[in-house]
Amino acid sequence: MGKALAKSILSGERMALARLLTQVENGSPEGRASLDELFAYTGKAQLIGVTGAPGTGKSSLVNQMALQYRRSEAGYPKRVAIIAVDPSSPFTGGAVLGDRVRMRDLAGDPGVFIRSMASRGSLGGLAQATAAMVQVFDAAGFDVILIETVGAGQTEVDIARLAHTTLVVEAPGLGDEIQAIKAGILEIADILVINKADLPGVENAEYALRGMLGLAHPVEKVFHHHGQAMSMPGSEPVNAVLWVPPILRTVATDGTGVGELLAAIERHAQHLRATGDWGRRERTRLESELEALLTETLVTQFRLSFPADRYEKLIDRLVQRSLSPWEAVRELLKKPK
Amino acid sequence: MGKALAKSILSGERMALARLLTQVENGSPEGRASLDELFAYTGKAQLIGVTGAPGTGKSSLVNQMALQYRRSEAGYPKRVAIIAVDPSSPFTGGAVLGDRVRMRDLAGDPGVFIRSMASRGSLGGLAQATAAMVQVFDAAGFDVILIETVGAGQTEVDIARLAHTTLVVEAPGLGDEIQAIKAGILEIADILVINKADLPGVENAEYALRGMLGLAHPVEKVFHHHGQAMSMPGSEPVNAVLWVPPILRTVATDGTGVGELLAAIERHAQHLRATGDWGRRERTRLESELEALLTETLVTQFRLSFPADRYEKLIDRLVQRSLSPWEAVRELLKKPK
Repeated sequence: MGKALAKSILSGERMALARLLTQVENGSPEGRASLDELFAYTGKAQLIGVTGAPGTGKSSLVNQMALQYRRSEAGYPKRVAIIAVDPSSPFTGGAVLGDRVRMRDLAGDPGVFIRSMASRGSLGGLAQATAAMVQVFDAAGFDVILIETVGAGQTEVDIARLAHTTLVVEAPGLGDEIQAIKAGILEIADILVINKADLPGVENAEYALRGMLGLAHPVEKVFHHHGQAMSMPGSEPVNAVLWVPPILRTVATDGTGVGELLAAIERHAQHLRATGDWGRRERTRLESELEALLTETLVTQFRLSFPADRYEKLIDRLVQRSLSPWEAVRELLKKPK
Repeated sequence: MGKALAKSILSGERMALARLLTQVENGSPEGRASLDELFAYTGKAQLIGVTGAPGTGKSSLVNQMALQYRRSEAGYPKRVAIIAVDPSSPFTGGAVLGDRVRMRDLAGDPGVFIRSMASRGSLGGLAQATAAMVQVFDAAGFDVILIETVGAGQTEVDIARLAHTTLVVEAPGLGDEIQAIKAGILEIADILVINKADLPGVENAEYALRGMLGLAHPVEKVFHHHGQAMSMPGSEPVNAVLWVPPILRTVATDGTGVGELLAAIERHAQHLRATGDWGRRERTRLESELEALLTETLVTQFRLSFPADRYEKLIDRLVQRSLSPWEAVRELLKKPK
């Protein structure tokens, strides 16, 4: 069923791509069948996660990164896909609006594909749907996939784990210290970006971030050498070299610093390959994807094997407090059906 | 095993309560056994969720609410538990600091118990651990349980669903419009609070919120009557009366508006009881708790029934792209072991 569609994707048909992305987002059987077909063609794209609080100019930065990936230089242009994971509520229409604003800059370029995704209520949720979309773009031959998430909740962290390189975007004057501490998001940052770096307060923002990085990556273990982390001489073997997240400044509205950002991403990719972390991240990613699919399937199968009214009756007993939730689970699993 | 501990909780021993909360957070077998014992004593507490972006003064507001619930008037004092769900990373120690600041105001009052909870990596995650803590406090006889969450990610929304009444806290000058739209959190708000209402910009914040509420709750369906929502005459039966979230102003630092906030919460509780929504929310809550426990148990059982090396070999094949994730799931479920 998914064979014809998969073939169209592999031969680069844009309409087919749009259709498959919708099917994947909806979890349709044809979407799943196509994913099975396409999986063998994945594993080539570079995945870059971009996260940060609202107001940091994340979307403009992602736009600029895409534009620079499209320039004609050695090693470029690269084909770029953007997945904007936007948990906006349906009534605000945030995702749609975002797409429209973006289209102005990148419209008409067949080497760029932008897709927004709103919240999904299903078991697997956003992270799972995003993983599937990444596979589609990867198989379709996009070199770089930018995954943009809003905020810093658990979902965003899960999605960031999909990426080879994760950027955390801050901006001056947003109460950066609090945002970053509260979100506990620094651990997932491979590169920190202070966007809107032409605004006052940029020094303070960088100072605060540097202080927190010191906590996250104790200085005794590493020292900086022209922006690259090295292990203390003689202390660790090469493959244990730590990556200390660099702090970069950008002004997305005019492109300042975005070239340097792309260079830092490339350095991080080389670091991942040199240390073997590239393969380890890949494996972890596939492992959690398998786990999510397995969980979804086990629960669905179990629910189907079980008469709905018996389930409802158990919930009645929970409401009456005559059975505890754990007792209910034991009750459900007793019958060897 | 959990019987002795459960008995101590029911007889109001504070040290036992602290110990059980730790066990519940860690998912220990004794914790689970105690939860089984205590479940029959739950279902009496009023659960209030409080969420909002960092910088809105949420924690101070929760403190003030607790203080006012402790005053000596008709219907008061009430016993109050606070669960502060804080996804701070371990190295920042945010949760611990928060507790210490709070202790100053509420220290020594045996009718108040404050507990912070940091992120959990387990399958069920924060929402499940919070649900279990709520049960402990409920059984221990706390009348009001305040569940405070930071931010507006999916986790926060899930946790808010635990509550009978959910407050969404905003503050002037935080870029409220963007925050609220992006977060898509307005749908979960039963009451909107503009805290720090002594700051400039409070009018704009309220205006923006009112505009968005209009989108979430179309005016054709309801009209306001002294702050209470009513259905259009003759249009709907009584039990379909809509609740339009009121917008209240508070200054948590001096307690302004907090009495009115408590009154609005009480009105909402009465609304829930009158419409039958109280019972429906209760049922939905227990149902999702059962589902989470069931999922966790099914996956754990499956993984235990399965040789680890066979699982690892499947992941090898995923990495080599010789098998797709869905094919791997089918492979795993084939063997009727």
